[in-house]
Formats: sequence, C-alpha cells, structure tokens
Amino acid sequence: MKALVYTANQEMTYREEPIPQPEPGDALVAIESVGICGSDMHAYLGHDERRVPPLILGHEAVGTVIDGSRPGEKVVLNPLITCGVCTDCLAGRQNLCANRDLIGMYRAGAFAEQIAIPERNLIPVPPDMNAARAALTEPGATGLHAVLLAERASARPISEARALVLGAGSVGLLTALILQDKGVTRVDLAETNALRRKTIEMHTDCRVFDPLQSAPETAGYELVFDAVGNSITRQSSIASVCSGGVIVHIGLMDNKGEMDVRAMTLREITFIGSYTYTPVDLKRTLEKLYSDALGSLEWVEQRPLAQGARAFDELNNGLCAAPKIVLNVASPG
Amino acid sequence: MKALVYTANQEMTYREEPIPQPEPGDALVAIESVGICGSDMHAYLGHDERRVPPLILGHEAVGTVIDGSRPGEKVVLNPLITCGVCTDCLAGRQNLCANRDLIGMYRAGAFAEQIAIPERNLIPVPPDMNAARAALTEPGATGLHAVLLAERASARPISEARALVLGAGSVGLLTALILQDKGVTRVDLAETNALRRKTIEMHTDCRVFDPLQSAPETAGYELVFDAVGNSITRQSSIASVCSGGVIVHIGLMDNKGEMDVRAMTLREITFIGSYTYTPVDLKRTLEKLYSDALGSLEWVEQRPLAQGARAFDELNNGLCAAPKIVLNVASPG
Repeated sequence: MKALVYTANQEMTYREEPIPQPEPGDALVAIESVGICGSDMHAYLGHDERRVPPLILGHEAVGTVIDGSRPGEKVVLNPLITCGVCTDCLAGRQNLCANRDLIGMYRAGAFAEQIAIPERNLIPVPPDMNAARAALTEPGATGLHAVLLAERASARPISEARALVLGAGSVGLLTALILQDKGVTRVDLAETNALRRKTIEMHTDCRVFDPLQSAPETAGYELVFDAVGNSITRQSSIASVCSGGVIVHIGLMDNKGEMDVRAMTLREITFIGSYTYTPVDLKRTLEKLYSDALGSLEWVEQRPLAQGARAFDELNNGLCAAPKIVLNVASPG
Repeated sequence: MKALVYTANQEMTYREEPIPQPEPGDALVAIESVGICGSDMHAYLGHDERRVPPLILGHEAVGTVIDGSRPGEKVVLNPLITCGVCTDCLAGRQNLCANRDLIGMYRAGAFAEQIAIPERNLIPVPPDMNAARAALTEPGATGLHAVLLAERASARPISEARALVLGAGSVGLLTALILQDKGVTRVDLAETNALRRKTIEMHTDCRVFDPLQSAPETAGYELVFDAVGNSITRQSSIASVCSGGVIVHIGLMDNKGEMDVRAMTLREITFIGSYTYTPVDLKRTLEKLYSDALGSLEWVEQRPLAQGARAFDELNNGLCAAPKIVLNVASPG
C-alpha cells in the first residue's frame, strides 16, 4: 500500500509500505481522509521523542472497514487504544489509562491506504457524511473535552462566561465553535498567523484577533483555553483570566518557564490540564459535526495524501491559510 | 491599650498603643483570643511587602462588642473587608473582591486589646463557646474553602477519595480534620516538624508522616492540598496526585520554580489556587467547631498576648509543638 512516512527530521516520504497485519480483535480499515494534527507537525520537527522515524503518523482518520466484524461500515477511528479494564477506563475516563497507546505514535498511524486497529476503536459514521468533515471528529473531541472540564470547574454556567481561546489551529477553532454552540456569551480567538485569521473571518463568525497587535483584556475572561501551550501563552492565560476563573491547558508546545503561582492563588485561578478525549466525547463531537452545529467548516482544506510532504513543509513555514489540512487517500483503481 | 506590635524585622513589641477610633459603620471590639497565623510569621520575617512595620498584626480573632449596634455580643471577626457591591461580592465570592482589605495588613490587626472593624464583619458566636476554640474559625474556614473548591472540581464524590495534605500548621491540620469530617476514605498529613507530628499523633487520629523520611505514594491521591506553597511542595503535589486528580494550592511560601505543565496536561491534573474564605465558609466552620465535628482541638496552645514576642521567636525556630498558638488578652481589671 501507499503511505506517507515520517522518515527523518523534517522529511515526509510518500512510498510503498507493507499492508498492516491485523492482530486478533483488530479490524482492517481502508482510510479515506485523515487530518494533519499539530502533534504530527511536532513529530516532523523532531520535538516528540515518543515518535521515532521511520513511522507512519496520522490519527485523525475516517475510512471503511474492509476486514472485521462490520465490513463495509464507514467509521471514524478512536486513535487512543486503552486497556479497557483499569479503574479509569471503567469509569469512562479512558484518556487517563496508564497503559494507553496512540496510533501514529508507538504504532503505525493513518497517513496510509490501510490501518489495523482494535474493533472497539471504531466509531460508526452516518453513510452520507462527508469524510473530510468526519475527520474533524478527533480534534473536535479534544475541544469538547476541554470545554466539558471547564464546565465542571466553573462557578457559574459557562453560557454566561466570556471565553478566550489562544491559538486558532483546528483544536482552538473547534473549541471556539463548540463554545459558541453552547451559547457562551462572548468568544475571542487569538491567532498570530494573518492567513489563518483571514480564513476564519471569511468562513466563521468567530471574533479573531492578533495578540501581538492587541493584547487580550487583562482579567477579562472567565474561561481561557490555551490551545498552544508554551510559556508565553501560559503567562497570557494567567493575565487574561479573571479572578476565580478557569484556564484549560490543551497545547503541549513546550514545558518551560515559571508560572505566577502567587497570582494564581491570590486570584483563585483554576488551571486544568486537558488530555485528548473519551469515546463518548468522540461520539458527541461526531453528532455535532454531522448536524452542522459547528458551522459549514469551509475553513478545512483538502489535499491528496500523495502531496502530504508539501503540506507539512508549508505548515512549517506558516504558508497555510487553513486551520486544518485533511489528506484524502485516492480511491484504489 | 496594650498591643503586640510588629516593630521591625523579627521584632515584636508589647507596648501601649492608642485606642482605635471607629469610623462610621464600625464596631469597637474587645479582643479575647487571637491566633498566630503563618502569614503573621511571614510578615515578622520581613517576607510580606504588604505588611509594613510598625503594624499590629493578627486576624484570627474573637472578642466582645463594646461599642456598636450589638454591644455585649460575642463575635468572631471576618478579617477580610470587602466592598460588598462588586459582582464577586454580590455572587458570594467576597474573597475575590478586587478592593478587599485585611485587618493586620494595611490596617491595624487584632494582637491588641481592642480593634475597630466594620459591623458587617462580625459573626455571632454562641455565648457558651470557648474563645480559643472560636479563634480557629478563620484558619478552619481557609481549609473548608479549599475543600469545597476541591469538591467542585472532583470527578467523583470526595468521600471516595484518598487525600494528602502537605504541611500540618493549623490550616493543613484543620483541612485534614474537615476532610475526615466529610468522610474522606483516607487522609495523610505530611509534616517535617517532629514536635508537631507528636502533638498531632497525641491529640487527633490523623495519619501524619515525615515526607523527608518517607515520600508520599507516587500518583496515589485523588486530592492533594498544599498548605505550604513552595517549589518543593508543588513538585511533590504533582508527583503525588493521581491522573485526573486535583491539587489545591493554599500556601504562599514562595513563588519560585517551574511546574511540570507537560505532566499536568498528559495526566489531566487540576491545579486550583485557593484564597481565604467567604463569610458563609466562616459561619459553617464556626458551627463545625462549636459542634465538636473537628474533634477536641487539644493541639491548640494558649499563651498570654503579653508573651507573644516569645511565641513568634519559638515558632521561627521550630520549637513549638503546637500547630496553633492562640494568644489570650488578659481581662482588663
């Protein structure tokens, strides 16, 4: 089969790879569409020691079962493979499973014509649903999960909140769209890339601004979502959140810099690390995407998998106007 | 009147001071008992730029109204003076008021025979309640507030949690006692001072241990309360809390050191800054103390206010076995 392989630092190679061999309990899925995630970019730049080349990256995937108990079914993949028997899994917090694995990390991912994955990681997709739209399920669920954590920690219903989202990649943008869908009073989106801002202005009704030109209002937000996760956005989060407010930290860009814990204590700020999603988050997000609750999604750009290497290069150089690039696998023929 | 005045770095002076002049809306209260807080110690050591000598410290106070609308009434002081009209005050989150003041900080405190304080800061005390016991209302409310924040952020009821409390000064110990009163499965208390550990073992049924000898169980606790608040206890909190767990940061010892935000994100940890208490927290804590819900409180040591300087010196040198020293004002006569 053809696959887009991370072969070395800043090198993606579209080449022939062996067809994956399903293990007991696995299905074989023909991939139709698969998104490029920030964490794929992170690996491509050599910043993720867990992702070692040569490796097929990619985990935001939709496809059709070609071997398994439900052949012919259209499915989204839950990329997080968990044990299913620990207390966290049994409690519905599968994302906390200490034995979790992720496709495109220690095992082959979905930038390929086919993937082997446990049957229990398949989520049925309505047959008439557009594949590129369904491929947003995973980043969308990351946003939904963060919003639900914020909701539990908030003193008042989040529909009354003012929210700031830092970073308008797909997770940040989908977080903003989910907040709007939940009726949050005001959602501001900070993004430094002018091309992305223009795309978002054109295709959504999000309020997007350049934080380098106009800083977010000091202590102005009950909720702040950090979809970047570096020392600058963490400082900005603490400065922007109001006393008693909630910061949800989603991004994993770096682990540097002190945080002003004194201010966080005197101002009673809640800081929540948010990691991926649960299977229920994925299902609910798929429903939102299918029902158009998150808008037209015209900000998604589609390209052929065969041209994936160029997409990585353009993303790395800030040349992409789209918050999300979805790679489509050509129909075999 | 007599007062214990913070006159210089590591110098407390028991001396004659002018009787405070109540402003409109103030009551004049004759102090009966007043506890020494960690923040008083912090000031005494010159570590709190908000508390400038000469200053009468002290804010954990109980006394009797001698001039005001309810003369003769026994009261606990709510030391936090807030505007009463901002959104936070109106929402019952008075501790977040941007215009808050605290007795013993920018204005005179309660290490004195008398204090002037707004009438609305008086909390009635049952006439038969022991004054030294009532003086624990303020540190107890700090613990209750932290526990209530943890309760809101917890995925499951906290009665099912294992909890770790770092630091067994009065706030840490009262936090542990409140957790026990709430039926929390297991409460471990970490304290480096051997004298204090012995007192706690003698007078409570808390499990207390020396974290320098035996580290708390890695990822062993759903709830961690940091009643110290320095870079070491923050690291220990992150190491000790389980995935998906909650850290409540109460102490304000220092503001140094990086936090492992990557681990906090991948393990989905919630970190909450907790600042003081609300008026309702104070009332509820007073009720708990009056009803013996927090035990016999025999770990409290009482001394005369006139000997307060020596108490500060002994506390500073780790010579005090009691987690709390309450200073009693001699009856005038």
